[in-house]
Amino acid sequence: MMIFIHDWSARTSEIGQCPTWQQQLTLAVLSVHCVNNNMVWKSLLTSIRSTVLRVPGRSVCVSAVGRAAVASQASLAHQLDLRGVYPPMPTPFLKDETIAYDQLASNVGVWSKMPFRGLVVEGSNGEYVYLTPEERVELVSRVREFLPQDSNKLILAGSGCESTRDTIAMSQKMAAAGADAVMIVTPSYYKGGMKDTALHAHFTAVADNCPVPVILYSVPAFTVIDLSLDVIADLAHHPNIIGIKESGGDIAKIGSIVQKTQNVDFQVIAGSASFLLATLQIGGVGGVCALANVLGESVCELQRLVMENDMSAAVELQKKLIAPNAAVTKTFGIPGLKQVMDWMGMYGGPLRSPLQPLTQQETEKLRQVFVNAGYL
Amino acid sequence: MMIFIHDWSARTSEIGQCPTWQQQLTLAVLSVHCVNNNMVWKSLLTSIRSTVLRVPGRSVCVSAVGRAAVASQASLAHQLDLRGVYPPMPTPFLKDETIAYDQLASNVGVWSKMPFRGLVVEGSNGEYVYLTPEERVELVSRVREFLPQDSNKLILAGSGCESTRDTIAMSQKMAAAGADAVMIVTPSYYKGGMKDTALHAHFTAVADNCPVPVILYSVPAFTVIDLSLDVIADLAHHPNIIGIKESGGDIAKIGSIVQKTQNVDFQVIAGSASFLLATLQIGGVGGVCALANVLGESVCELQRLVMENDMSAAVELQKKLIAPNAAVTKTFGIPGLKQVMDWMGMYGGPLRSPLQPLTQQETEKLRQVFVNAGYL
Amino acid sequence: MMIFIHDWSARTSEIGQCPTWQQQLTLAVLSVHCVNNNMVWKSLLTSIRSTVLRVPGRSVCVSAVGRAAVASQASLAHQLDLRGVYPPMPTPFLKDETIAYDQLASNVGVWSKMPFRGLVVEGSNGEYVYLTPEERVELVSRVREFLPQDSNKLILAGSGCESTRDTIAMSQKMAAAGADAVMIVTPSYYKGGMKDTALHAHFTAVADNCPVPVILYSVPAFTVIDLSLDVIADLAHHPNIIGIKESGGDIAKIGSIVQKTQNVDFQVIAGSASFLLATLQIGGVGGVCALANVLGESVCELQRLVMENDMSAAVELQKKLIAPNAAVTKTFGIPGLKQVMDWMGMYGGPLRSPLQPLTQQETEKLRQVFVNAGYL
Amino acid sequence: MMIFIHDWSARTSEIGQCPTWQQQLTLAVLSVHCVNNNMVWKSLLTSIRSTVLRVPGRSVCVSAVGRAAVASQASLAHQLDLRGVYPPMPTPFLKDETIAYDQLASNVGVWSKMPFRGLVVEGSNGEYVYLTPEERVELVSRVREFLPQDSNKLILAGSGCESTRDTIAMSQKMAAAGADAVMIVTPSYYKGGMKDTALHAHFTAVADNCPVPVILYSVPAFTVIDLSLDVIADLAHHPNIIGIKESGGDIAKIGSIVQKTQNVDFQVIAGSASFLLATLQIGGVGGVCALANVLGESVCELQRLVMENDMSAAVELQKKLIAPNAAVTKTFGIPGLKQVMDWMGMYGGPLRSPLQPLTQQETEKLRQVFVNAGYL
Repeated sequence: MMIFIHDWSARTSEIGQCPTWQQQLTLAVLSVHCVNNNMVWKSLLTSIRSTVLRVPGRSVCVSAVGRAAVASQASLAHQLDLRGVYPPMPTPFLKDETIAYDQLASNVGVWSKMPFRGLVVEGSNGEYVYLTPEERVELVSRVREFLPQDSNKLILAGSGCESTRDTIAMSQKMAAAGADAVMIVTPSYYKGGMKDTALHAHFTAVADNCPVPVILYSVPAFTVIDLSLDVIADLAHHPNIIGIKESGGDIAKIGSIVQKTQNVDFQVIAGSASFLLATLQIGGVGGVCALANVLGESVCELQRLVMENDMSAAVELQKKLIAPNAAVTKTFGIPGLKQVMDWMGMYGGPLRSPLQPLTQQETEKLRQVFVNAGYL
Repeated sequence: MMIFIHDWSARTSEIGQCPTWQQQLTLAVLSVHCVNNNMVWKSLLTSIRSTVLRVPGRSVCVSAVGRAAVASQASLAHQLDLRGVYPPMPTPFLKDETIAYDQLASNVGVWSKMPFRGLVVEGSNGEYVYLTPEERVELVSRVREFLPQDSNKLILAGSGCESTRDTIAMSQKMAAAGADAVMIVTPSYYKGGMKDTALHAHFTAVADNCPVPVILYSVPAFTVIDLSLDVIADLAHHPNIIGIKESGGDIAKIGSIVQKTQNVDFQVIAGSASFLLATLQIGGVGGVCALANVLGESVCELQRLVMENDMSAAVELQKKLIAPNAAVTKTFGIPGLKQVMDWMGMYGGPLRSPLQPLTQQETEKLRQVFVNAGYL
Repeated sequence: MMIFIHDWSARTSEIGQCPTWQQQLTLAVLSVHCVNNNMVWKSLLTSIRSTVLRVPGRSVCVSAVGRAAVASQASLAHQLDLRGVYPPMPTPFLKDETIAYDQLASNVGVWSKMPFRGLVVEGSNGEYVYLTPEERVELVSRVREFLPQDSNKLILAGSGCESTRDTIAMSQKMAAAGADAVMIVTPSYYKGGMKDTALHAHFTAVADNCPVPVILYSVPAFTVIDLSLDVIADLAHHPNIIGIKESGGDIAKIGSIVQKTQNVDFQVIAGSASFLLATLQIGGVGGVCALANVLGESVCELQRLVMENDMSAAVELQKKLIAPNAAVTKTFGIPGLKQVMDWMGMYGGPLRSPLQPLTQQETEKLRQVFVNAGYL
Repeated sequence: MMIFIHDWSARTSEIGQCPTWQQQLTLAVLSVHCVNNNMVWKSLLTSIRSTVLRVPGRSVCVSAVGRAAVASQASLAHQLDLRGVYPPMPTPFLKDETIAYDQLASNVGVWSKMPFRGLVVEGSNGEYVYLTPEERVELVSRVREFLPQDSNKLILAGSGCESTRDTIAMSQKMAAAGADAVMIVTPSYYKGGMKDTALHAHFTAVADNCPVPVILYSVPAFTVIDLSLDVIADLAHHPNIIGIKESGGDIAKIGSIVQKTQNVDFQVIAGSASFLLATLQIGGVGGVCALANVLGESVCELQRLVMENDMSAAVELQKKLIAPNAAVTKTFGIPGLKQVMDWMGMYGGPLRSPLQPLTQQETEKLRQVFVNAGYL
């Protein structure tokens, strides 16, 4: 009996290298008969997933059946509940700019005790564009390894690359390394070429070939590409695209996304704590917030207050978080975030070049913001 | 006994032309003794204001005492309570592009029955850049005239010009014509020159010389100038600057403004219905919403629901308004807004060139949005 | 016998106020018989023009015959030879920000002795957006008055306004006040609405109704609107549109304009000395150069060298001018230009607010540039 | 006797893997005595270079002596004469998006017979952001291999990555693979962080550690980062930075660069045929022109005419090239360029996703441009 490998022959060898491939294949083979029966598929996939849960490479078998399987996974993918807060963790470096894995373990230890829904590995705060492809996969593996075995925290891994094929390969590797879902940034180098049709085709191809659910990621501050409402609304129907991390901060657009996707299962996540309350209120489900790296309890508290409809307390807390949030995002960026982590007893450490550390004057201003807000 | 005219000799002749000047002078002269006593000033100004209320030119006497008076008006100015919703009315034109005053009267009649806090005359929706200086003042006069005598609706008039001196002159004339406050857009032609110091000096000079309270207006979609948080926070301390209409839609910035001005009396108004709920929630006081021109009841209802803390109903309504709002702002702009007014039984009418009417295809799309939302 | 007034009844009264209307009408009436005979028209118009030359209001009669006449003027309009250099004069102000006409007379005296082709009045360097409509017309009159009677210098007047109707009215008044041609900037406030169709309609309507030739003006640094190649190429066929002042500095676009308009009579003028040589070389005819206000001889010399094909000398001179040119344009703008005028013994004087004067540090840097280049 | 390895221990192993390392070390060791004597160094390096010329990895020995050597190479590096035209070759792909090396060989064969100064491998036209790190190095090796042994054409390789360390590693590998110089694009993801100090540090670190000369590359259309004049002028003093490829098209900036670097040995190259003439005239030395991929003879002819000061012929040719150039750059980009290559009998082939092929309508327009210009 042969497994049905659809649209995917080129990547078989990669899959073959996955250590748990044999074990997974067995499970996958069982499902080949019922490839056109969604309900059966769904329960099979669930059992496959639960079997391989927390096993590195566990997701690969699902993807091995390719496009057909993805179509069948629809309702399963959408069962991945993203509700909650995620710190987009910065990647810690030693002085020589190599990745500081020991310090990463320690940081992950701190975050794992917070009431987060999960961690974002290699969001923009993770200096992901400064990592080699090998480092990118390794980093996901290590975070999975460093999370306690009994942790139920999700790992959302930023697997976006400029090319569609690299993005697919990276997504598959990250899934194999332990990512529960991948977050795909808009490609952006050839700005004139990144029209709606190109972006639609890109995300569709990635989602078709990705063993774990896909989250869109629009961050015009870095890409100068604002993923259009029309494309988002259309992609929301793809069975393997479960949501968007919207970092543009335009609450009108966020409201439009919620409204336009209300009949499909599509989850909107705020890309910053500064519009977390507004996003949750209008129907979003959570936040990937740089600030949560350092003020995790407070950001989770904000989400809890909104969920419990304690709006006046929520608004007070949101206001209190505004200045610290601006300081570690727009104003001082990753250098600011890493500096505050150092102050908070975590490991921030150096940046990879060409990013530069704060000047002394900037450091003082940053400190004042956190002192004024009562956090230092 | 002479009235103290401070920093203002150049504009005496203009003031002299104001028909109610003699009457107002009498009142103003009474106050000259107590120019350094804020509490007495405040009550005098209140009585002056109430006397000249609804009289064209009523505000001039207050400004005649110039900078000294303005300093004294501080608490008074801040008593102008902006809470509520305002339609930024489009300027109606006949086919030959002259202003359609009869149709304006009819539109104002409709709006005057809505639970608005007031009307914005010559916001960006008013095609104000297409009006001559004389038309700009006349339009304010006519709206004041068309509002019922017993209406307590405010008139916020957009008096911004590129130069500081034109803006001051226009603000004074609009105040004399019946504006309760003026809204001053950032000058924007010489983009490189509009640094923080230039903008700070501009708004300060205008506020120093304006007989009615001043509202800042930042609308980067049109000006490509995003008034900086630092300048806003500093200007918020000016006794005659009472708030900002923020049209950038960045709820993080709006939150920052609220937070940075929490110790002064400064009111933040959303420049679009799409982020009205979010703005109100974070501490804003109202909205200048293009959509209110055509769905006034609904926009006011949204504000009421938030004020009464009925958040789930508010969120439902906010969502319902998103698509119609986008259609009359970002997507189809003023041509779209005027078209919907025509459908709603008001007078939208033609645009001034070079603005072009919608194509047939655009018109159909626009109609569909309002049909889908149940408003047509 | 009646004069044929086409598409223009609304503006008859304005024309009627022109003092030389009666005199001009006589001439115009003579021509009514031959409205369809271009050759006769052309010679008639030439005689009309020569008769009213240097008489304020002289151009009105030509426009009084409206669209029909304009069509007939085609070859005439194109006879206006723009070849040469023009200083875009700054508007001089006194300390109280009123226009310094005496100082203007003195500056015009200096420029009139230079080998310029003419003067640009109310280009962007003229702070035209800070002038009232009345001042704008008056300024053109005064420059005409201050130019020696026997001067053959052209006056190109910037008559652009945001609305089409204001631009038409301003163009007619400036023509009546002595402008030989008008320069029409792209309207720019409603950026989303300024699509190709809107801009095409705007320039066409203005050119249809303008008694003197029209020069397009694209200056994206201020307007954020880059007039598209397609629209330019199409407008170049309009009989009353004779050229473009291109200030974007994109020599590829300039080359494209030259190439696309090679079969019509269309003249391309560089908007800065920094790309004057490159523009002339690729087929442009001249330059409107801020630098010419202060280094007029050198800029004219540059044009002469290129015309005489003395390229190595031209290139050396172009290089020498680069740093001073950058200093009075991109780096220090109008404040820098006015400062250098003061140093050169002309009248620069203050700016209108909100433009701010240079800081001391900026002033020193500016001085160093001109000292280094050997001009101070 | 030991070779002095400065600032470079971390990369020793990489160097050690270079097949010709032993041979090169012998030569390098000879030079260790005279590390502070520039003149001796210069002749030694020249002999080392000539020895290893055209040997893969030949450049490594020079870099092995690190920063000290680089300082000494100054005059040597600047001896690399960049004058001439370079096609920025597109990377050919098969239908499955793998690199089409056979077709590449054939294309290189065509280009090698043209009077180019060299080839640019992995400029923006090379879809370099879509290549894996391994593919990027392999591509340089293959182009070196495909060039005839006796070819004196330079290979300029685009080795820019987002991080400084990746850029250094890539530059070293590309040098080892046969690049004569590397072209380093500005990093651009963290736009707010790419201030002058960061970019200056980045380029300095790369140049300090790069075995072959470095060419700066500024291309704001893709990066939204316009490398500032101040940084360029300062970096021009670095002994291992020999020039800039300026693709912004602002001839004023290009003139400023030429003027500001006139006392150091710094070569400015136009990034497009559309401003090649203007660049050469103002003191630039050549062009990296997408158009040269398909109209190589004509672009070289343009450079020759300017060099021979036959300006009228040069201008005529420049004009003729404008429309075809715009078609394969701004208007239709890489998809357009590849399409024309197919028409010209070369191999254009498919793009890597997410770039999309031209629509049929676009294809027809493109064809018309080349037909009109007489090239099809």
